This record gives sequence, C-alpha cells and structure tokens, in this order.
Amino acid sequence: MLTKTVPTLRTRATSLLRTLQNHSSACPCHACGTPAPSQSASLSAARRLAVAAPIEKEYAFEMAASNIRYGNGVTREVGMDFKNLGVNKIAVFTDQNVLNLAPMKTAIAALESEGLQYEIYSHVRVEPKDPAVKDAIAWAKNIAPDAYLAVGGGSVMDTCKIASLYEAYPDAEFLEFVNAPIGKGRPVDRKLKPLIAVPTTAGTGSETTGTAIFDLVSHKAKTGISHRALKPLLGIVDPLNTRSMPSSVKSSSGLDVLCHSLESWTAIPYSQRVPRPTNPILRPAYQGANPISDVFSFEALRLTVKYLPRTIADPDDTEAQEKMLLAATLAGVGFGNAGVHLCHGLSYPISGMNKGYKHPGYQVDYPIIPHGVSVAVTAPQVFRFTGPSNPDRHLAAAEVFGVDVSNAKPESAGEILGDAVAEFLVKLGDQPRGLADLGFTRDDIPGLVEGTLPQARVLTLAPSFQKDDEQKREDLAKILDRSMAY
Amino acid sequence: MLTKTVPTLRTRATSLLRTLQNHSSACPCHACGTPAPSQSASLSAARRLAVAAPIEKEYAFEMAASNIRYGNGVTREVGMDFKNLGVNKIAVFTDQNVLNLAPMKTAIAALESEGLQYEIYSHVRVEPKDPAVKDAIAWAKNIAPDAYLAVGGGSVMDTCKIASLYEAYPDAEFLEFVNAPIGKGRPVDRKLKPLIAVPTTAGTGSETTGTAIFDLVSHKAKTGISHRALKPLLGIVDPLNTRSMPSSVKSSSGLDVLCHSLESWTAIPYSQRVPRPTNPILRPAYQGANPISDVFSFEALRLTVKYLPRTIADPDDTEAQEKMLLAATLAGVGFGNAGVHLCHGLSYPISGMNKGYKHPGYQVDYPIIPHGVSVAVTAPQVFRFTGPSNPDRHLAAAEVFGVDVSNAKPESAGEILGDAVAEFLVKLGDQPRGLADLGFTRDDIPGLVEGTLPQARVLTLAPSFQKDDEQKREDLAKILDRSMAY
Repeated sequence: MLTKTVPTLRTRATSLLRTLQNHSSACPCHACGTPAPSQSASLSAARRLAVAAPIEKEYAFEMAASNIRYGNGVTREVGMDFKNLGVNKIAVFTDQNVLNLAPMKTAIAALESEGLQYEIYSHVRVEPKDPAVKDAIAWAKNIAPDAYLAVGGGSVMDTCKIASLYEAYPDAEFLEFVNAPIGKGRPVDRKLKPLIAVPTTAGTGSETTGTAIFDLVSHKAKTGISHRALKPLLGIVDPLNTRSMPSSVKSSSGLDVLCHSLESWTAIPYSQRVPRPTNPILRPAYQGANPISDVFSFEALRLTVKYLPRTIADPDDTEAQEKMLLAATLAGVGFGNAGVHLCHGLSYPISGMNKGYKHPGYQVDYPIIPHGVSVAVTAPQVFRFTGPSNPDRHLAAAEVFGVDVSNAKPESAGEILGDAVAEFLVKLGDQPRGLADLGFTRDDIPGLVEGTLPQARVLTLAPSFQKDDEQKREDLAKILDRSMAY
Repeated sequence: MLTKTVPTLRTRATSLLRTLQNHSSACPCHACGTPAPSQSASLSAARRLAVAAPIEKEYAFEMAASNIRYGNGVTREVGMDFKNLGVNKIAVFTDQNVLNLAPMKTAIAALESEGLQYEIYSHVRVEPKDPAVKDAIAWAKNIAPDAYLAVGGGSVMDTCKIASLYEAYPDAEFLEFVNAPIGKGRPVDRKLKPLIAVPTTAGTGSETTGTAIFDLVSHKAKTGISHRALKPLLGIVDPLNTRSMPSSVKSSSGLDVLCHSLESWTAIPYSQRVPRPTNPILRPAYQGANPISDVFSFEALRLTVKYLPRTIADPDDTEAQEKMLLAATLAGVGFGNAGVHLCHGLSYPISGMNKGYKHPGYQVDYPIIPHGVSVAVTAPQVFRFTGPSNPDRHLAAAEVFGVDVSNAKPESAGEILGDAVAEFLVKLGDQPRGLADLGFTRDDIPGLVEGTLPQARVLTLAPSFQKDDEQKREDLAKILDRSMAY
C-alpha cells in the first residue's frame, strides 16, 4: 500500500490549494490585540444584532499569529527581549521536570544577565486540572509581575496564559472566560501583560495561539479558554530546547502536531462556517480551513510525516528534531487560525475520563493519557469518517504518507487516509492500539460521547458533522466503537 | 522550451523547502510592536556591543506580519474595527483616483455607519517624492487623529505610514528615520497610532509590512523607511477593491508581486547574513530567505505565474483577481520577512532618474515609471546573474513558469530562469522590452549604478553580491548594460 509517489502528491496539493480557495468566508480573529474602552459596548451591540440577523455563512477569514523567532540558541535572547519591553519583574512558569533542564537554565541566565527580577512558579502540572490552574492563578495574583515567561510544553504555556488572564481580571469567576457552553466564553477586553513563550516540546504550537487547555474536574473533560488576547507576544522557538525531550514525550507531542495539521487541513472551509459574525471582533480564532492556514497545515504535515519517525528512531538526529519543532510551530499557526475538529473534540473526554492509564515514559506520579496520545487514538477512524466531506483533501494527505493514490476512488478516500494514519502510528511504536489499550471498554462510550458533545468550538468545524444532536451522538459512538482496537 | 512539468516542479520545491531549511540564522524582527521606555537606552547599549563584537553570521530568524483579513466585501467591517479599538477621529489617506471609486466609498460608508469622525487626505501622489510625503505629514500633524486608514495602492499605504510616524515624532527631522546610509535609520521607539490598510491594487503587499518607499528628490533615488513599528495593525484584503484597477495598474502591480516572490525566494539564506545582531531589536525586517518566508514566497510565485496573465487577458476574470490579491498579500509576508534584493535595489534609481517616460494607462499628469515596471525591467538579467548562487532554487522557480528543467545543468540555472522571466514579461504585453524603452541610454548606466549602491538594506541580501564596492559597480553595470533591451 505504501509506495512513494511524491509528484502526484504535490500536484494534488497544488491543485487543492487552488481549487479550495473559496472567497466567501467569515472568520473570528479580529486579532488587533488592543482591546479598547468601547469594546464591551460594541460587543453587546453586535450580539444583539447577531441574534436578529439571519444565519448566513462566513465570507472572510482572518490570519493572526504570535511573532515567532526560530534558531538554535535563541533562548539566550529572552532577557534582552524583556529589557527592550521596559519590564522588570518577570513571572516564570515551568514544571518540575523542565525546572532542572537546560532550557530553563538558559532562560534564567538570560534574565539574570540583564539584571531582571524574576520569580519562578515550577508547580505546573502536566495535563493540568482546574485546581492546579487555580493555584497558578493565585500565585500570579500574589506576585503581580510586569510580564510572563513560560518555559515548557503545552501545559506550562497554557497554565501561564490562564494565570496572566485572571491576574488581569482579579474579580472574575473562574468559568467567566472558559469556552461556552461549559463556561461563559466572555471575550477578553483588557490588554494582558506581555507573555513570551519558550516551548520545550515539539507539539502543542501553543507559543503561536490564543488557546489554553485544562481538565475541568467537575465535568470530567478537558476544556479551555480561547481568545486572541491570550496569544504570546513572541514565541521563542529554539531547537536546542527540545533535545531534553524523553522519547515518549517526543512521540506523543509529535502526534499532536500530526493531528493539528490533518484536522486543520480537513476542517470545513471557512466559507461554510455559520453564523457569519456581525462584528469582526466576534470571529472565532478557529475559522475553518482557509488558503493561508492550508499552506501552514500542509507543510507541517509533510514535515511531521518525514521527521517524526526519525526523531524517535535516533535520539541524536538533531536535524529531525529541528524540523519537528518547525513543524509544530507551523501547525500551530495553521490550526490556530483554521481550528481542529473531531480528534481533538474526542480527546478531551478521553484524557479527562482516564480510569488509571499511565503512559509509559511520563515522569509523573498520577495516571496520564498524554494529549497527543488521546488525540491520535481515534485519528484512523475520524478520517475514515470525514473522508466523504472532501475526498481530494483526504487523498492528498494520504499521499504525504506515501500512499499511491493515482487510482484511488473518491469514495475510498477516508478509508485510505485512515489506514495510512493507522500504519504510521503502528510503525512509530509505543502507542496504544486503540481505546481498549487505554483501559476503556464499550461501556464507556456513552460517557465519552456526552463528554465530546459540549466541545462546540471544535465540533463546529468538523466536516460531515453538521447534524442534529442525536445524529452526532450516533456518529461519535460509531467512531469510538471502531477506535476500541485497530 | 515552455512545457508543463508540474510534478517535477513540486518534487523539486518540496526537496528545496526541506534541504534549504538551515537552522543557524539571525533575523531582525523583534516585532513585538510594543516599544517601551527602556528601549532607546538598551538600543544604544546594543549598538556599543555591536561595534565591539566580531562579525558573526546570523543564527535565527523572526517571522512577523500584520493581521490579515481576506474576503469579498470585508471593507465594510472597517468602521466596526475602529469602533472596537475605541478610537473616534480617523485620518483617511487616499489618492485622487481612488477617492471616487467603490473601495473608498465603501470604507467611508463603514466609518459613517458607526458614527465615526473622519478627515480625508486625497492628495497622495502615485510613486510619491519627498515633498508630497512632507505635505501629508504636515496635514496629519494638523489633524492629530486617533487612528489612520489607508485606502489605495502602495503609494497611499506608504504615505500614510510615514505621516503616522512623523505625527508621533513632531520634532524629528525628515531624514531621522529614513533608511541608512541615506538617512539616519533611527529605530522607532514609540507606539504609533493604529493604522488599518485597505489595498486597492494586487501588488505592494504594503498592508503586511513595516516598509514605506518614496523618492528622495535630492538623491534622485527611491529610498524609504523600514521598521516593524510601521506595520499596519490590520490589512483588510478585499478582492472587490481590486475590480477598479485599470489594466496597466494590474500588470505593473502584478510584476511587483512577481519580483517580491522571486527575490525573497532567491535571497541569501538568513544564516548567511552578517552581522549577527547583538540584540534582537536590532534584527532587520529583511533577513534573508528562511523556512517560513519560503512557504509564502513560493506559493505567491505559483499564484502569480498562473493568475497574473489571466487578470490582464480578461478584465472580468474575478477568480484570477482574487488569487492575485491573495498572491500579493502572501508575497508581502514572504518578502516582508525575507527581503528583496537586486531588482528592487536597481529599481529605485530607475524610477528616480526617469527622464520623462510616462507609462501607458497611468492617469497622472507627470512622467512615471511605475514601481512594478522598474522592478521587472532588470529581472531577466538579475536572475541570470544570481543563478550560480543557488541553481536549485533558480531551477525550481523556472519550473513554476512551465520550463522543463529535468535535464537542466546547474550552471545554466540563471540563464534558464532569466529566459523564463523574459518570456513571461513579453507574453504579458504592454511592458518595456528593456531600459532603452524607458528612455535610458548606456550613458545613464554610471548614474544608475551610483543610485543603486546606497540601497544597502536590500543589497545586503543579494546573492553572488557580497563583494567590494568596485566589483559591485562592475556587476551592476553589467546587469544594467544587458538590460538595455531584451
């Protein structure tokens, strides 16, 4: 099945990038990042309008991303960056593992060499639950820093974003900004303090996005906060910082990149999203696939398929590590503007309802299904399900995995991509071969379905999925059932 | 010569995007856009350091761009954007042609529907000289608006950027911020007022960049101001606004896109640029080719080669217009981070030393060599000259034009790309067949050479060109001599 046919792939991708560039679309990223006094008022007005207006499809998209600096050793510049910003007291977020590793040492040395004051919060929990996040918020309120520095993986960057947010709104209830319908989804209308993010894993892309994810214990599901105001000012993307990743973290964070790129590439086109916002500030960050996110997502997919296996096979393959970190960042810009869909929607209850699985190689003293693992475990069945929505895109993605699709029928596109993803996961090694390996049984499916349905922010973008709730339940159950083992 | 071989092209491009992703690089875009009190002090310190440090090559690059909103009709959202920003009094920049066209009418209606105050400056000169720019500055200082709106082509956006800059520095001398060595190249260390740019041509990409270009009469050459602080907050990229472009403007602005993409794709890699900045704030915006700009530049090249001829051939081909506007924006992000080189460096004296040529179709009452025309006229010879620096990239670009390069020798890469560009220009029609058609003779070459040499900002990035001044003079003279007629 897997034979190299790169030229066909490229042709198809080019053709896709052309033909799918629809021009009637609506998208959520006002992204100016400079909220203003009248914003709340105009938001309310816009909402009133939104209620009255007929439901129209989007007609525009907006592209926004953090500034990104990439290079071996750029972490040492971070002290100068804060100095250039005119800030002095820095709140540094990290976790117990990264605390003693080279990336953190380099960052701290950079702050010290500029004579900056700093305080370290090193209790970030990997795949944090809301009590851990609240602890970080309380710490930040107490410190009241001038700026924030996050040195770590997605959990560290996301916790730091949330701490910075609630420090700016000391009186806000915790659910105030959490994504609706679980939380109130209040838009951020104050300017947050500068945050510089230094990723130490090649996965989350959180350094480029306004998204922060955590486990809400009361709902047994992951949810999050998503607003462009949470975007870091700058992402310092330094391949030297990923040298310290254990192999298990490399593979699970790399699978997150894989799904970011595949999901954003196959998300509904921005021009199919409803409703068309009545005010640009109401455009979500996750807008559906668009001609600019496509460029990022597809390039990230190519890099991931090529380099992720190399990073696992050879811990000293620094070239592959560098390319994977670049892929993670490119995918971050891609999904940060286009969004993700079913793999991510399903992953939140999968991680949240973990009954005791602890992924090999994770140095924590509690059960954990790493985010990348929970995202990838349903991917083969998700893309089998979404195939009919856009066979060309699914076949183009399958070609990246080396599948010869020259004679493929459009109706087989989902199956072909699903098989290619499954084979990729198996060859990568160290991955559960389905939900059963994670400790789930078929009895858990109804709970997982109910935990997925509230993930409106991402399900809105799922192709083949704009149906009533009963049909959605049926589809999700089918995907989960088939994902028990592969 | 021209036969379609897209698969080979794609293969080569993929391979290039891979192999050329060097990871030791330095790049100039701190891009935080939030200048701070201590910035000037740390800049001075950094400069002192820079003088003392040995000349090392770059090891990082930085990616920054304005937020971009793209869609048919998005111009009508601009009133809400200003309202969301909490500003009231808007200075609107445009020119005498655009003043009465649909894009301007839509923008003004959008301001009015939100009850915003505005004042219009409609005297922007196409390809402005410094007295025209100074007139705009004086007007802005007098108005003292809360924010700026530019509705027009590159000249309008650039004039608006400069007016906003000097309004923020009312006591600054005009040459203070102009690119060194012509001006003093002072970095911008104050936060400028919000600027929203609405391009009406598919060319400049100025809506995404911190660059503004004008003619300095005393030097008989184009120069400019380039700093990330000049980047618009938001580029509103509305294909409906390019419907009003006359055919001559379509082709000359499209040729600017062609050269933006080709020059940024073939610029020296960021990791070859010297010196490595000692402080991230000293990184220029124009950094050399890097893995992120490559994605933008190459995609823009593909779109331009495919759609520019269609926009000229059929004024009603709205799909082609939409794709060209997207290409212009993508190329803007590409060259805005990677830079341009010899075509642009040579174009400034070519436009500035115009002896009376008036390009057909331009509705102005003075001689004019449009920017795109002056950039493209030397392109065939420029890429012939730069070919040996990176044959693979030149051949990959030639393939985009449809050349079969499967048996091409690396040493012919420059000639092959140069021929492909020349054939493209000839087929496009309405273009001068060399400098002679623009009214230049061989006697003008020494003057054009001397007018090009001070364009340090772009010449630094020219491949095959890192030589002493005497050799540079010789090379420029050779390129100009061979560009007299093709």
